[in-house]
Parts: sequence; C-alpha cells; structure tokens
Amino acid sequence: MKIVFLLFDGLTALDAVGPYEVLSRMPGAEVRFAGMTAGTIVTGDQRLRLCTDAALSDITACDLLVVPGGFGTRPLERDERVLEWVRAIDKTTTMTTSVCTGSFVLAAAGLLKGRRATSHWAMRDRLAEYGAIPTAERVVRDGKYATAAGVSAGIDFGLSLALELHGPDVAAAIQLGIEYDPLPTLDAGHPGRAPAHIREALQARLTARDREARGVK
Amino acid sequence: MKIVFLLFDGLTALDAVGPYEVLSRMPGAEVRFAGMTAGTIVTGDQRLRLCTDAALSDITACDLLVVPGGFGTRPLERDERVLEWVRAIDKTTTMTTSVCTGSFVLAAAGLLKGRRATSHWAMRDRLAEYGAIPTAERVVRDGKYATAAGVSAGIDFGLSLALELHGPDVAAAIQLGIEYDPLPTLDAGHPGRAPAHIREALQARLTARDREARGVK
Repeated sequence: MKIVFLLFDGLTALDAVGPYEVLSRMPGAEVRFAGMTAGTIVTGDQRLRLCTDAALSDITACDLLVVPGGFGTRPLERDERVLEWVRAIDKTTTMTTSVCTGSFVLAAAGLLKGRRATSHWAMRDRLAEYGAIPTAERVVRDGKYATAAGVSAGIDFGLSLALELHGPDVAAAIQLGIEYDPLPTLDAGHPGRAPAHIREALQARLTARDREARGVK
Repeated sequence: MKIVFLLFDGLTALDAVGPYEVLSRMPGAEVRFAGMTAGTIVTGDQRLRLCTDAALSDITACDLLVVPGGFGTRPLERDERVLEWVRAIDKTTTMTTSVCTGSFVLAAAGLLKGRRATSHWAMRDRLAEYGAIPTAERVVRDGKYATAAGVSAGIDFGLSLALELHGPDVAAAIQLGIEYDPLPTLDAGHPGRAPAHIREALQARLTARDREARGVK
C-alpha cells in the first residue's frame, strides 16, 4: 500500500508522526513524505524539522493520503497548487484522510462537501464553511474519507485503519508494539471534560491564532 | 527550561515526538535536538528523517535531557562518545529522562544503577544487566530520573512532567491542546491484556531484532 503524508511548514509533528508510527508498521506499507519541495520543513513551533523525500510533482498517485494539521494548514486552504494536487491524488486513492486541521485542506479542495468530518475541537465548526458536516467524534469516516480529531487522535485513527485493513491480529500487534495503553495523568483531553476555564482560555487563544494565520482581522 | 532531545539513526520517531509535542508547549520551554552531527538522522524504518540542530559537542548543559528509544539505541550502549556526553550532561540536569529503550542508554552510562526504571515491555528485563531495577509501570520516577515505557508512553510521561513542573492548569491546557483523550480501538496495548499469541510472537520478533542490533549470536 502506497501511503503519502503531506508535509508543510507549520505542521504539528505529532499529527503526522502518530499515524506514521502505526501505518508504517502495516504489512506492505510504503511510506513517502511529500512537500512543496523535497527537503526540510519546520513544524509549528519552528523548532523540530522533518524532511520531505518527494516534491508534490514527484507524487502522482497513492493508495492512502494523510494530511496532518497545524497552523500551517491555513495558507494551504488558499494555495491552489496544493489543492489541485490534493484533488488529483484523491482521484487515485482508496482512502483520503486527515488529522486535526488537515481536514480543512481536504475541505478547501472540495472533497468534504456534504460529508461528515472532524478536526481539532476548537476549529471543527468552521468546516461547515466548506459544506462539510462538523462531527464531534474522535475518528469520523464517510465513504473513503476519514478525518481524525486534534493532534493525538491520529494514533487512534491509524489503529482503526490498521484494524480495518489488516484485521485484529495485525492491529493488536502494532498497538502492543508501540505499547499504546494510554494512561493520561489528568482527564482533560476532551473539551467536554476539561475544566471550563481551561477550555475557554484555550479556545480564545487558538481562535485568535487561527484568524491570524488566515489573515482575518 | 532548556530541554534537549538526543536524536540518533534508528530512533523511533514517536518516542521523541510524543513528549516533544507536550514539553515544547510548557511555558519557557527551549527545545534543541542534538545528534552526532548537526544534520539529518533517519528513523528506525529508514523512511522518516528528522533534523538535529546541534552536534553533541555544541551542547554542554541542559535542564531536561530526553533520550528516546528505537533499535538505534543498541549501538549507543557501547558508544563511549555518546555515553560520556550523557554522563556530562546528566551532571547539569535537573531531570534526566528516557522513553522506551532510551533507558538503556542511561543505564549503559551508569546512571540507573540501583534505580527503578522501565523501558519497552519486551526489553525491560535486560535493564537488570546494568544494575537497574526493571519496573513494570508506564512512567517510572526515581530521584531525578524518569523513564517511560514503550513508544507512546512518552506522551503520558510528558504530561506527568508538565503537571509536576507547572501544575494542573498548564498540564490540562496542553492535554486539551493536543486533544489527548485516547480511544484505542482494541485493548491490546498492554502485554498483560494483549492476546497471548500476539504477545509471544512479538516478543520473539523483537528479541531477535534486539540481539541482531546488539551483535549477539
């Protein structure tokens, strides 16, 4: 299975690396990392750098496309070169997927019209602007489109896909291999259970950054 | 807080990126990625490449050292240049930490003698060869040393450290920011709950790779 991750400046590393660590362990997985150019991209905090191994133009087809999120998705929503590429690749995939705000790239490409989709909880509702149906689930599947919620949800997305594609033995072996037996110290990872003052402050901060990244006053 | 991740060829990306995504969000965090040289390193499956931004010799002190795991830790157990650097940095840290088999680098450097420590479940017992006390917990703390279990445990480690250093509001905001509300599809991430045939097959496969990576017949 040919799996392509789209990488771009300003991505959130865990959005990509979570599903990568799962999907790359599937039997027959061939993973590539595509970017505007073949080279280095920087993550959202400008610190960790990941390397692409292909330019967009080098990749013309794949079985599974994964678009991670991060504030760097905002410019992509208006970048016709990227959106054209996403549309063209989507015509070749068996599954087109995203993590966190990566769903906005799929939505801006017109792929989620009338479809249920999710994103980071603080941004999700804006998917409706592209005709998608914002859906508050950790992993949302609609036809061949799968969208995962914020950042760490990409791990759950990856495992659900491994289960679907390869069955429980392979999925369990991958899960045990990455010892994914989560034990959060606090129960604050869901907006419905995090303390209200934390949620509201974070929503305000993320919305401000979102508007800034989109150039909205 | 100056945080340094040790990167090396053959690391498991999620071991580093999980805690990075948490720790880099702590107020005042300054993150650097140190490697044998400043440049590119490849992860365990030879596909994803991460960039170091400092050579070992560029880093002489930090507050928090994080050593991730992966099969690439085996050569490091006998690499005096790396072990000397780890010992020297450890003299300057307030915390010295690891994820997965990163604990073997700390152990080989002599830092875990007589201390409780953990690692990937399939490898953990071998820590006793270095005088450490293998401990089956997701995150083990002994003095200023914290060791996390396999791969994905680095996220829980990061959040537990954010809680300790910055209190519940900061830790909750980070957890909500990365939407860490895990929802594994299967309950197979713990060796005690994974199906026995999966666990035994994986243990055999990982042990064989471990011996090969260590050059043991």
